[in-house]
Amino acid sequence: MTTPGLVSLVGAGPGDPELLTLRAVRRLRDADLVLSDALVPPELLELAPKAQRFFVGKRAGRPSIDQDEIHRLMIRAAQRGQRVVRLKCGDPFVLGRGGEEALALAAAGIAYEIVPGLSSAIAAPALAGIPVTHRGLAAGFAVVSGHAEAAFGPILDGIAPGAMTVVVLMGLATRGAIAERMIARGWASSTPAAIVFGASHPDGLTWTGELATIGLTSVETELPAVLVIGEVVSLATQIGCARQPVAELRALAAELSS
Amino acid sequence: MTTPGLVSLVGAGPGDPELLTLRAVRRLRDADLVLSDALVPPELLELAPKAQRFFVGKRAGRPSIDQDEIHRLMIRAAQRGQRVVRLKCGDPFVLGRGGEEALALAAAGIAYEIVPGLSSAIAAPALAGIPVTHRGLAAGFAVVSGHAEAAFGPILDGIAPGAMTVVVLMGLATRGAIAERMIARGWASSTPAAIVFGASHPDGLTWTGELATIGLTSVETELPAVLVIGEVVSLATQIGCARQPVAELRALAAELSS
Repeated sequence: MTTPGLVSLVGAGPGDPELLTLRAVRRLRDADLVLSDALVPPELLELAPKAQRFFVGKRAGRPSIDQDEIHRLMIRAAQRGQRVVRLKCGDPFVLGRGGEEALALAAAGIAYEIVPGLSSAIAAPALAGIPVTHRGLAAGFAVVSGHAEAAFGPILDGIAPGAMTVVVLMGLATRGAIAERMIARGWASSTPAAIVFGASHPDGLTWTGELATIGLTSVETELPAVLVIGEVVSLATQIGCARQPVAELRALAAELSS
Repeated sequence: MTTPGLVSLVGAGPGDPELLTLRAVRRLRDADLVLSDALVPPELLELAPKAQRFFVGKRAGRPSIDQDEIHRLMIRAAQRGQRVVRLKCGDPFVLGRGGEEALALAAAGIAYEIVPGLSSAIAAPALAGIPVTHRGLAAGFAVVSGHAEAAFGPILDGIAPGAMTVVVLMGLATRGAIAERMIARGWASSTPAAIVFGASHPDGLTWTGELATIGLTSVETELPAVLVIGEVVSLATQIGCARQPVAELRALAAELSS
């Protein structure tokens, strides 16, 4: 009798291995095959020592395989009884095509599960000292893909100016168009805005300014970026000021606990 | 010389211990004092064997301490050199008053850090087979507090009908008023809607129906609930159908890996 295969659609979180869930670590440890988003840091794949490991999807200078091929690879491996981890940046169901992959697996009769991960939509601002909600400033937030104006246009037009925090993923290239559209919609051009680069990466950094200037920042980095727009960004200075001592204390804590 | 204290504002995720991050587990293991939201499952606190452990905040039938007192307790303990974990449901910065706590710590000159956790806003729908975004159905989502109509009213009024998925936390009691307000705003009364109860808990369950009927469901549970409104809810049946075999396979996987 062949052991039935299992596909786990696993969220890798923002990149720091310590921000993986315990379940993600277990699934990686037990995996026979890992198909990872190209932007997942390679050290996370070292948690899957038994597995064949592949990067899939777009990455500068590397060939990519298409979505259907990813589905076929997962299905074939599971049918052979393998344990497959499909490792995705952030959370598999936040702008990550995880829904499509789940539907393909369900249609093929493959057993699968979702292992949620920390979405950069929340974790990136948090690690930069920006709470996406805050009493008196924002009782809610919206998360939007900045990939294509055809997608973000109607969503941003649909949000009343200042009604809530707006977080944009994959919006670095389109940040000028996003700001223009929001200002045209009635947002104050002085609305606080931030770009969080490489959240949880050692060389991460945060730009803060205003909606009017977010498109004017020049950027020389390949780190993933998250845009945050709204009054909550004004808290970054106060909340973020404790970051430096914390970095030192983390080192101390690591030392003491090793 | 006294070792400097450290306060970690830690997200506990939806409740299942396996959905904690590695960093959350480490901080609990090393903690001298844990101040936990009342709704965090008690077994998570067993991960902090060295710590004094207290539940704070509202819980049926138990006394509660106020927010200022929580701040004072954290500050005093850190000043005495203790490692404090403030354990909060979901993510500390999503409708959890984590921002207020960070500001209080910063004002007192206490070193602290944010350890993001899985927010139920994303993880609860995901574990019920509902992706908050999905190609062709929703390129974004909004997360709103359902606690008070004064807060959710302006936000919901600010979202164009059908523009994105709407997720409501703490909205079980107000679900009727929420649905009414959204329908008055122009949302189709037939918009798919779900209530995810006790996501990641063994006795969790999901109700699915329509916006028009979400207020009519009778509910006999104390499990935390997340409302999801939008076309993506229609995927729950297809994506969720694989859940049963997965539960069995999980047991198998646990057996094989132990």
